Amino acid sequence: MAQNDIRLEDLPDLARGAALLGAGGGGDPYIGRLIAEQAFAEYGAPTILSPVAVPDDMLICAVAALGATNIQMEKLIAGNELPHAVHVLERYLGKRVGALIPAEIGGSNSLLPLMLGARQALPVIDADGMGRAFPELQMNSFSINGVRAGPLVVVDEHLNTAIIDTPDDTTAEAMTRALAIQMGLRVYLSCFPMTGKQMRETAIHGTLSAALAIGRALGNGNGAVSPVDHLVDVLRDIPTYGHARALFDGKIVDVDRRTARGFSVGSCRLDAIGGGGGNGGSQAVISFQNENLSCDIDGRIVAVTPDLICIVDRETAEPIPTPQLKYGQRVRVVGIRAPERMRTPQALAAFGPAAFGIDATYTPLTCA
Amino acid sequence: MAQNDIRLEDLPDLARGAALLGAGGGGDPYIGRLIAEQAFAEYGAPTILSPVAVPDDMLICAVAALGATNIQMEKLIAGNELPHAVHVLERYLGKRVGALIPAEIGGSNSLLPLMLGARQALPVIDADGMGRAFPELQMNSFSINGVRAGPLVVVDEHLNTAIIDTPDDTTAEAMTRALAIQMGLRVYLSCFPMTGKQMRETAIHGTLSAALAIGRALGNGNGAVSPVDHLVDVLRDIPTYGHARALFDGKIVDVDRRTARGFSVGSCRLDAIGGGGGNGGSQAVISFQNENLSCDIDGRIVAVTPDLICIVDRETAEPIPTPQLKYGQRVRVVGIRAPERMRTPQALAAFGPAAFGIDATYTPLTCA
Repeated sequence: MAQNDIRLEDLPDLARGAALLGAGGGGDPYIGRLIAEQAFAEYGAPTILSPVAVPDDMLICAVAALGATNIQMEKLIAGNELPHAVHVLERYLGKRVGALIPAEIGGSNSLLPLMLGARQALPVIDADGMGRAFPELQMNSFSINGVRAGPLVVVDEHLNTAIIDTPDDTTAEAMTRALAIQMGLRVYLSCFPMTGKQMRETAIHGTLSAALAIGRALGNGNGAVSPVDHLVDVLRDIPTYGHARALFDGKIVDVDRRTARGFSVGSCRLDAIGGGGGNGGSQAVISFQNENLSCDIDGRIVAVTPDLICIVDRETAEPIPTPQLKYGQRVRVVGIRAPERMRTPQALAAFGPAAFGIDATYTPLTCA
Repeated sequence: MAQNDIRLEDLPDLARGAALLGAGGGGDPYIGRLIAEQAFAEYGAPTILSPVAVPDDMLICAVAALGATNIQMEKLIAGNELPHAVHVLERYLGKRVGALIPAEIGGSNSLLPLMLGARQALPVIDADGMGRAFPELQMNSFSINGVRAGPLVVVDEHLNTAIIDTPDDTTAEAMTRALAIQMGLRVYLSCFPMTGKQMRETAIHGTLSAALAIGRALGNGNGAVSPVDHLVDVLRDIPTYGHARALFDGKIVDVDRRTARGFSVGSCRLDAIGGGGGNGGSQAVISFQNENLSCDIDGRIVAVTPDLICIVDRETAEPIPTPQLKYGQRVRVVGIRAPERMRTPQALAAFGPAAFGIDATYTPLTCA
């Protein structure tokens, strides 16, 4: 991707693509899109850097919001939280940040670095730490490859600030979560300070571009015979993913969703329409913890984390996030193979089926 | 107090005096005494500075343990937590700490600065932030006089670290408490960074000396006709307090103690022995939140926070902390007037009766 090629008018498509890559979670990108649009209009679009163009010794940090999605809509971002978080991290490390990277491309966290990049004139790297969304701080390709989440900075809307410094990312997650709950379940992080070289060797490359391409496919797919089939075709052409498949075609007949440990957990049951889709089958069950984690058809798991399981509208292919699943919706389930760095043995230990208590062996999803 | 006049052999008395000034809370000073003794033996006693001898622009910080007392006995201090906490604070502020001050004199937190002072060759100031013990971070004479708790550093036994930076001490308390619960309810703080001038204008002066004098009275009082009467006489001679009185003489007939919001809350009921004490009366009720908060005799409050209400053994005058109150104990209740800086309008707003939900007007305790 060349420089400066995410423009103001691209943001709706980028947000739509990020919503799909959220795999049910990652938060609604709507608010993120609005604040990014405002920042682009006021300050101009930020420079977008290809990860291979980032100098080896440049200090990179990830930025993200953390908390509960429903709070996001009630407690709007003020705008100065992330600039403050990055400034405090710079002061703590005694070094200036040279570029930003999204912690996760899925959901609203894809847009925040663009807003911040525009405001602070900081380049944003066309990459992220997951190629999707995951609920916990240690569930990403930085962590599993030895880049530490801390020192990290947690900031709330009043600019109350905490710096967390621990060598263990699971401890960092626990400390950050405890603070986030106390601070109102919507906090902003600067985290994963790393060198350009570390970023290049651990990040999932090209995911801002991928989200934009997916969003364009969704936006332009209305003329296609089947927007969902068109989406699957586009996903197969994106090198970061490459493998995608429609898994099931059905109607939602039950949603069991509850809030536990600060997450939205449960499952969604579908009855087949028109043969059920590529695998046939009469009933599908999707389990989730914020993000969709497994797709089971007639008792057999056909897709499981870290692969992406996306529930989309049957007619328009618009992604449907977990909180918006409703009885009676006609949907299709699309599986996307996780990027290669998200499928290593370390990756599967951190966010494979067993990490979520799912009794299944991970087999990468294929196109057929 | 002259320099260097808390010696290794003074520590048992100091611990005993600090237990009394804990007014039922503040944590058992036994462990604190052991680790201070070890540090004095290994490194020599630290220099003790009178608050009036501290240079105006010297950076002072308070150190303390925070958490649950019962955990303190299970999760022993490793010894390097507080040096790390002070070092991180120094690095964050870009300035060296010149002297330490106990956050509270009551209970185990009186001993930790002495341990740290010995280990790090840092002077310890003969003063503290309360002249007693209180359960929350914003309940002290620094806070109510405009010295902020933050930036403060929270460290656990693995040296997992958080720096909390907020201009509001109640927020600092909430954030620290959330982390403390997550980190196992025993954490170590460096906090209230301030100048020597600020310390002098806000601290409760002479409280290390006071604790030592009280502890000596308790240790040597066994030959007195009544060790409790002897204790009251000694308290009246200590300028920081000056007013003290035996409030009730009784037998514990009920203890209602539960753990709520991370505190030990409840009340203790006493039936009179030998006329009930100075006020007469047949029954007394002491309410507590870690520390004793009010003493009610036959339905009339005779002492209330911020004054100190201490339950001591009827025969030996040994202080009995809240967790050790038991049915059948024969005790006397001693009231001590809080130091002057703990009785201002700001003080009463922060830790007077209303701050604990007690419907009473504070009237300073008198000798008669």
